[in-house]
Amino acid sequence: MTPSAENHSVLILAGGRGERFWPWSRPERPKQLLPLARGGRTLLDATLERALRLVPRERVLILTARDLVEAVRAECPGVAVVGEPVPRNTAPAIGAAAAWFQSRGSGAFMVLPSDHLIDDLDAFVADATRAFEAAGSERVLLTFGIPVSHPETNFGYIQRGAQVGPRLHRVARFTEKPDRARAEQYLAGGEHLWNSGMFVWRPDVFLDALEASRPALAAPLRALAAAAADERGFERALDPVFPGLEAISVDYAVLEHAPNTLVLEAAFDWDDLGSWGAWARRQPRDGHGNVLFGDAVAVDCRSCIVVGEGGTAAALGLEDMVVVHVDGSTLACRLADTDRVRRVSEAVRERGAR
Amino acid sequence: MTPSAENHSVLILAGGRGERFWPWSRPERPKQLLPLARGGRTLLDATLERALRLVPRERVLILTARDLVEAVRAECPGVAVVGEPVPRNTAPAIGAAAAWFQSRGSGAFMVLPSDHLIDDLDAFVADATRAFEAAGSERVLLTFGIPVSHPETNFGYIQRGAQVGPRLHRVARFTEKPDRARAEQYLAGGEHLWNSGMFVWRPDVFLDALEASRPALAAPLRALAAAAADERGFERALDPVFPGLEAISVDYAVLEHAPNTLVLEAAFDWDDLGSWGAWARRQPRDGHGNVLFGDAVAVDCRSCIVVGEGGTAAALGLEDMVVVHVDGSTLACRLADTDRVRRVSEAVRERGAR
Repeated sequence: MTPSAENHSVLILAGGRGERFWPWSRPERPKQLLPLARGGRTLLDATLERALRLVPRERVLILTARDLVEAVRAECPGVAVVGEPVPRNTAPAIGAAAAWFQSRGSGAFMVLPSDHLIDDLDAFVADATRAFEAAGSERVLLTFGIPVSHPETNFGYIQRGAQVGPRLHRVARFTEKPDRARAEQYLAGGEHLWNSGMFVWRPDVFLDALEASRPALAAPLRALAAAAADERGFERALDPVFPGLEAISVDYAVLEHAPNTLVLEAAFDWDDLGSWGAWARRQPRDGHGNVLFGDAVAVDCRSCIVVGEGGTAAALGLEDMVVVHVDGSTLACRLADTDRVRRVSEAVRERGAR
Repeated sequence: MTPSAENHSVLILAGGRGERFWPWSRPERPKQLLPLARGGRTLLDATLERALRLVPRERVLILTARDLVEAVRAECPGVAVVGEPVPRNTAPAIGAAAAWFQSRGSGAFMVLPSDHLIDDLDAFVADATRAFEAAGSERVLLTFGIPVSHPETNFGYIQRGAQVGPRLHRVARFTEKPDRARAEQYLAGGEHLWNSGMFVWRPDVFLDALEASRPALAAPLRALAAAAADERGFERALDPVFPGLEAISVDYAVLEHAPNTLVLEAAFDWDDLGSWGAWARRQPRDGHGNVLFGDAVAVDCRSCIVVGEGGTAAALGLEDMVVVHVDGSTLACRLADTDRVRRVSEAVRERGAR
């Protein structure tokens, strides 16, 4: 079918493992399946709600890990869920989805990570609508940029180029996760935005861009369109293809090389909830600044995060600490160290492997 | 029967709840039932071993809480175990045991707390033998004093009086748990010993001393001798008596008032394992000074105690901290705060009661 400017779609990427929330997050219960959104909803459920404000249910595709398909289907009934046989990062996943949507005659599709938090749904819908308009009719790769509020070193950054519309610019440059000094410069300079990992583009435009920069990826992904009739058939088609693909992010594989990239500065709130600390910033606190979640006890504590799920977590005489008890595992660390929690989940995994 | 200088006995006091080891210790699994002794043995089992070096099994009595009787019997097969219907501190317990032993024609009996650690068994036996000799034939109340090694504020102290034998003195004065300044004075002065809670005396001598200072306690306890034929009968006899008794320690009720008290300075090692920190001082450490026990992981940690029982405990980037995960509960605190852990177990209990 031919691309249509109206026939929009949404891809939700739900394959991440989110080890930074260990021990709450586990391989079988990654961050997007945790009740981290408002009202105790999972981040994935909240992401699907956003998608359904933009397109009907049958125009949503969720890509996840093969072993998470059942859990994701249970969370998102009636939505197409496809499991990747092996993880290959975002470029192959988005390329496969482009083939899926192309075979359905889709216009532009939006890429949504499933583990971010956005509360202002109306502002999100307004910006997404503008993005669909911009990317539906033109051969552009549109990215969502988030205003920089602190010198974050865990995000990629986008430098704005020439303005082409309200809050809409050409991209001057994509940059990797910067060191602290450079992040401070980006914050002070005012020319940079955070790369949110949310994108809008047409299937044909994306596959053409991929072919230009990574032809070895583009050819087998483009061919998947022939097998995209249903989820099972698509999974069977992925099985022989995915293991041989380069594991690479869409930023590296496509965006840094493409000439036709735009960035829309988001008017909505956004948080990637990258750590226990990021999550806690949005939680209510007791009179001593502690976040107590679930079966949690804090005695003589200040500014601590104490989480007890499936058991009791107790902290005594601590300040700026995280103490988490979830279903048979405990983590204790300083609040300032929560972005290093991945090292613990790795150590636990290695220990189990011995 | 008449008291005999040969017919010694041992009373093991196993009714404590040991909340300082929460969450390892619980009401149903107090400190004396934890594997804190060498080789992963329980403190109670190690205490029984000491007792059996002194007297045959049939001359040991264990007093514990009624709801702990089964657990204690399982740990100490073939030993008389009697459960108190309500806790009434050490004076009523020792008085009841005096009646039990008196009805069996026992000579002196030794009182052993069940939650202390003594590794040098030979030195212990030698000192206990001396104590039995001293207290078996004379009307004295003999206490074991421990050489003071640091200004501990959680112990009572004994001031030595006139020397009456090698390492054996009359007691000049029993003192309460001192404040820090006074504990420093005691340490510097060299006249004080820690009150270990281990004693040797004859049943008749103890009951007479109790009658002199607390007649209202002595009368009903003395009368228990008539019901001391077996454990069940003794328990039935305790039921109507114990609830009405004053809950008071043997130090307050008897020792501080008795004129005939002796103190034997122990030649054996002794530790009351009063906290996680005290326990850890006797455990092996990794290259960074961490004590890792059970399923424990420490990443970038120094001088920490990490315990995982029935689950994984993980610490990240910490120093001088205690992180404990035991069977559905977690504790995190500074090593310096481990003697305040009781406050956490109290808070958890109150929380459960709401």
